[in-house]
Amino acid sequence: MTEAGMLRVPARAVTSLLKDSFVAAGLPDADAARCAELMTEADLTGAEGHGILRLPQYVRRLKARGFNAHPAITVTRSAPATALVDGDNGMGHLVMTRAANEAIAMARDTGVAWVGVRRSNHAGPAGLYAEMPTAHGMIGLYAAVANANHMATWGGADLLLGTNPLAVGVPSGSGPLVLDMATSIVAYGTVKKYALRGLAMPEGWFVTPQTGEAITDPNRSGEGILLPMGEYKGSGLALMLGLLGGVLNGAAFGRDVVDFNADDGSETNTGHFMVAIDIARFMPLAAFKAEVDRHVRDLRASKRLPGVDAIRLPGDRRAQSRAERLRDGIPIAPALLAQLDKLAAELKIKALRERT
Amino acid sequence: MTEAGMLRVPARAVTSLLKDSFVAAGLPDADAARCAELMTEADLTGAEGHGILRLPQYVRRLKARGFNAHPAITVTRSAPATALVDGDNGMGHLVMTRAANEAIAMARDTGVAWVGVRRSNHAGPAGLYAEMPTAHGMIGLYAAVANANHMATWGGADLLLGTNPLAVGVPSGSGPLVLDMATSIVAYGTVKKYALRGLAMPEGWFVTPQTGEAITDPNRSGEGILLPMGEYKGSGLALMLGLLGGVLNGAAFGRDVVDFNADDGSETNTGHFMVAIDIARFMPLAAFKAEVDRHVRDLRASKRLPGVDAIRLPGDRRAQSRAERLRDGIPIAPALLAQLDKLAAELKIKALRERT
Repeated sequence: MTEAGMLRVPARAVTSLLKDSFVAAGLPDADAARCAELMTEADLTGAEGHGILRLPQYVRRLKARGFNAHPAITVTRSAPATALVDGDNGMGHLVMTRAANEAIAMARDTGVAWVGVRRSNHAGPAGLYAEMPTAHGMIGLYAAVANANHMATWGGADLLLGTNPLAVGVPSGSGPLVLDMATSIVAYGTVKKYALRGLAMPEGWFVTPQTGEAITDPNRSGEGILLPMGEYKGSGLALMLGLLGGVLNGAAFGRDVVDFNADDGSETNTGHFMVAIDIARFMPLAAFKAEVDRHVRDLRASKRLPGVDAIRLPGDRRAQSRAERLRDGIPIAPALLAQLDKLAAELKIKALRERT
Repeated sequence: MTEAGMLRVPARAVTSLLKDSFVAAGLPDADAARCAELMTEADLTGAEGHGILRLPQYVRRLKARGFNAHPAITVTRSAPATALVDGDNGMGHLVMTRAANEAIAMARDTGVAWVGVRRSNHAGPAGLYAEMPTAHGMIGLYAAVANANHMATWGGADLLLGTNPLAVGVPSGSGPLVLDMATSIVAYGTVKKYALRGLAMPEGWFVTPQTGEAITDPNRSGEGILLPMGEYKGSGLALMLGLLGGVLNGAAFGRDVVDFNADDGSETNTGHFMVAIDIARFMPLAAFKAEVDRHVRDLRASKRLPGVDAIRLPGDRRAQSRAERLRDGIPIAPALLAQLDKLAAELKIKALRERT
């Protein structure tokens, strides 16, 4: 992915535009700040398909009342170690922050907690939430039903499955390991990024439902089927995560999923689940971290296949991107900058460039 | 996979040989029966890489005291919703039966339970255990650290990761959906099956560590690196499952894994985890099953890509195989039959053919 032609914007300027936009769109101050913080984190950690790129769409949905700007998020503890969160159609970042905090608090008492979420919305990159328990000496698991069906079941041609991501966060002595994987061969945010940057997609990402032939123009992705990771395995995992994150919580799955790219006004009834596991109930946290560190050292010191320059473990790219972008700024594509300038003018707030 | 030249043996004959072999090798009667039952279930459900094919190796390990024939399996409830099972190096099937029962019993009280397992052994196909909670109105999750490292981390050439499988079982109105996936591009049991049947492996399964070139002879798989499912995703998931199933429980992972194909006498300290989720804590079980059925109908009725004869969902192949093999018998390859005849003679028990 080339970054030529990109404007580099300090993270605090990105956060500032995000926050002011959300306040202008009707969010309470603290909620606007929290959404801005998490979306900036997405951009910093290289998940820019879930960062400020989503702002124009989110603001449209807030204005169209597709998102509830003043949700009454409720938590029902249905058993000692389980809870159901009803997001009241609020911003997904706020609903998931509440769900993650609840899972962490419950797991402190019960060792593990499973929190299901319904009536939420798009919440950004899965890794954000899986990482949260790691700061509390816990392992985090997170999955979501994606907000559009870009996949078919393996062999099928009807769009009935989303890219339903799974993320796992594990603490170590040198920062958390975070695996964040879409069950599709690539995340849909990446497709948006390719479109915005005018790049062709590799073959093997999208096929046409009629002939099974490859589609490489990201602007034509809407005509195609996004293929699953690992063939039937990715398709099977997307189904299972959909049942666990959607159906189990009374949230949308399959035919009921609202394509929030095509519709700003309808409630999406997005489902997620969040699990926190308290490491101290299995072994002392320090001993666990030391063991993880030892294994990570072994993997990093591994001999490499021909042509491989370095071993990358889950979370490495996130950490590298975060360090580099905190230093050099978050890259903003010209097309996105134009959208953000237009949005700032509409909301009567300072443009991104005036904040740098 | 051709089945020409296969002997078809009734399931009860397979169970009978398994049970008598284990009794002859020193297992108590009830334990022998339980192992025989689960291994027959593996053969019936098409996971023959984990069925009676493993018997000669298991008996060797029992004789070499690599397995403890009289384990004192202990369960420590470390928190209301978590437990640690110490298998005392017993047969994995027995240890995991205990762990699954414990998870189901605990989840009845706490909504979800997470049971970690250490000092266990190879326990057969992951789907067996993920399916168990479904008979109790629960969802099951299961993963294991594989008993040999056939994979490298993505880009690496040292064998530090196993095919660490993940399985998910979900009840529906027409029997459980069971996803059982190795994190490798193919399960190692399948490689053994190819070797036994004298078939070449497709390219893309194994590469040589020196050049990255494909290996297609299954008898040469020991020289190669088994590739992960979905490139870095399968490698990342194998690592995370290894940390959750191994390191968290004080069980072997990475460099510490004992290759039980090469060593009959050493304790493997195999780790697993088992999760049970009580559906009734989220929504009424009948409503959940009806919703799963509705979505399954949508997926099955899906239009198909050119050349696809039918939509297959997780568990379909298992259920079809089970019905067909209960009717026609379990296929046994000539090379395996010869091994089993030799074993029966050594153990002074009736041969498989005499039991049909």
